[in-house]
Amino acid sequence: MRAAIYTGDPTLLVEERDPVPPGPGEVRIEVAYAGICGTDLHIRHGAMDDRVPERAVLGHESSGRIAEVGEGVTPWQVGDPVTVMPLRWCGTCAACRAGHTHVCQTLKVIGVDIAGAMQGSWTVPAEVVLGLPSDLPLDQAALVEPTAVAVHDVRRADLRAGEQAVVVGGGPIGLLVARVAQAQGAEVVVLELDPHRRGVAEQLSLTVIDPGQTDVAAYVQDWTSGAGAPVAFEVSGAAAGVRTATDVLGVRGRMVVVAIHSEPRLVDLNRLFLRELTILGTRVYTREDFETAVKLVAGGEVPAKELISRVVPLSGATEAFEALESGGGVMKVLIDCQATS
Amino acid sequence: MRAAIYTGDPTLLVEERDPVPPGPGEVRIEVAYAGICGTDLHIRHGAMDDRVPERAVLGHESSGRIAEVGEGVTPWQVGDPVTVMPLRWCGTCAACRAGHTHVCQTLKVIGVDIAGAMQGSWTVPAEVVLGLPSDLPLDQAALVEPTAVAVHDVRRADLRAGEQAVVVGGGPIGLLVARVAQAQGAEVVVLELDPHRRGVAEQLSLTVIDPGQTDVAAYVQDWTSGAGAPVAFEVSGAAAGVRTATDVLGVRGRMVVVAIHSEPRLVDLNRLFLRELTILGTRVYTREDFETAVKLVAGGEVPAKELISRVVPLSGATEAFEALESGGGVMKVLIDCQATS
Repeated sequence: MRAAIYTGDPTLLVEERDPVPPGPGEVRIEVAYAGICGTDLHIRHGAMDDRVPERAVLGHESSGRIAEVGEGVTPWQVGDPVTVMPLRWCGTCAACRAGHTHVCQTLKVIGVDIAGAMQGSWTVPAEVVLGLPSDLPLDQAALVEPTAVAVHDVRRADLRAGEQAVVVGGGPIGLLVARVAQAQGAEVVVLELDPHRRGVAEQLSLTVIDPGQTDVAAYVQDWTSGAGAPVAFEVSGAAAGVRTATDVLGVRGRMVVVAIHSEPRLVDLNRLFLRELTILGTRVYTREDFETAVKLVAGGEVPAKELISRVVPLSGATEAFEALESGGGVMKVLIDCQATS
Repeated sequence: MRAAIYTGDPTLLVEERDPVPPGPGEVRIEVAYAGICGTDLHIRHGAMDDRVPERAVLGHESSGRIAEVGEGVTPWQVGDPVTVMPLRWCGTCAACRAGHTHVCQTLKVIGVDIAGAMQGSWTVPAEVVLGLPSDLPLDQAALVEPTAVAVHDVRRADLRAGEQAVVVGGGPIGLLVARVAQAQGAEVVVLELDPHRRGVAEQLSLTVIDPGQTDVAAYVQDWTSGAGAPVAFEVSGAAAGVRTATDVLGVRGRMVVVAIHSEPRLVDLNRLFLRELTILGTRVYTREDFETAVKLVAGGEVPAKELISRVVPLSGATEAFEALESGGGVMKVLIDCQATS
């Protein structure tokens, strides 16, 4: 089988490797598709070299089929379609003991800290595997992981049916958040500067506005009859996005910071005071979120198919990363890890 | 009767005025004591000239006795000891309709937007008046309002018995927050740079550390057995206080921003993400908080007596403000508004 390897250089090395036989409690998966995420882009440019192993295999968004079952693993049969919830927690820290294993103080992400899905054959602990409905196409199933992120974000917001939510940033995660919020019964507006991304949002029947052309504060005031929005999701990762997400909220509004902001951001604490706002951090997902995500993708509430811009073979992994980084006209890019590709 | 008037100049004008007879639904209070708050200091220096009326009477922390009762007011008798919850809301905006009248979108504060307590005789709507136990000294009762702020802050934090809370800033509100948190069964550490304030905190049997001398992050790590604190109250108003309050929190920790930050502050959103933190804005109080505050002050859980550094007659109002601004050695300063003073 082949694997795409990050060796510290932006050009990924694609090389032949022997499949790793599953040990006790493990399974071997024949990977079908691996999605590329913003985190993977950061890794490729060395931003997380202190965290990733040497000769790292990236990829934490995946789909595939069980190829081999290790000793003591009962639930899986060869050929079962599966995805992986790529988290490993310690089970003993204060967070784990409090039941918040997904924010374990020493959380490891498979595909970041441990070898991931960008390989034809992938051996993982059986407990991180989730089954997929047999009629769900495996390319769409690779979007379960980012959908689980969106499910978790919406749950952190405690979003209720009928509430209005502003999604700041219309990339893949933003649009998934928007559709999951709609599935909860919320009314949603997406803000996005990029015309291509606005086009995709429109094709998904989402209301999307260009914050470069529209007075967002006035728009939301009008939309909410002067109340301000109860919920805003900051998915842009930009300083201006943080400001916008704070500005649109009404009294007791909740802002969920979905994007990763590696540097501190200026936050309007006076508005936090005046309106008794709440700002919520959010990180990955729980097993329950992942299971909900499988249902939403399989049920079509989440537009997995429409978000896939391109599928490239494993041999073209570097080009796939470059296409995503070039920005224009691309949403989600999948790597086809199947032997035939 | 006399009143201390802010005319746009830092020197308050003390002048004779005729008492205002209460109209229907109003009462006239003979004010005993009015406390000086940080907001009053800001007003005296012109920072809120767009908000305060011309020839403003400041003071929103008060105690006194009913002197006269207007038409249709049934619950009060002349001589009843009372305090005032100094809020006026519109009742019709989205916040009011949602039951959050204390964050009304056009909230008015009596003593800021409307004439306040720094006068011998004060006529107010009967609905803002709360009764006091007859054995509660009226100087201590003037601390009910800041105590209600602390009660509200602790309630916003959803602080539970046995939880550990870090209070960043040991001024009057910080120490009230600390004691209210203790009354809820929490373990509390106060951080304060000023030695006099640390001394007062120690006299109140609070654990207080000097963040200029102690590695706060290491201290809290140790105190919480590596988990980080579940709750932090930012009461310093300083940029560094925001940073400290974020740094000390454990997974799913809650930071309540109590102090007013008139300019945006840098917030570590990466830590917000890594630990799924929550940042809560908080503003004034509800009637329930005010009633709880009366009980805590009357019951001695809150050290009202110990926090009063000085009581000055109304004629010395300007000097009272100056004493507070000089910082050294002063916590709460009350103005004695009684005719005999």
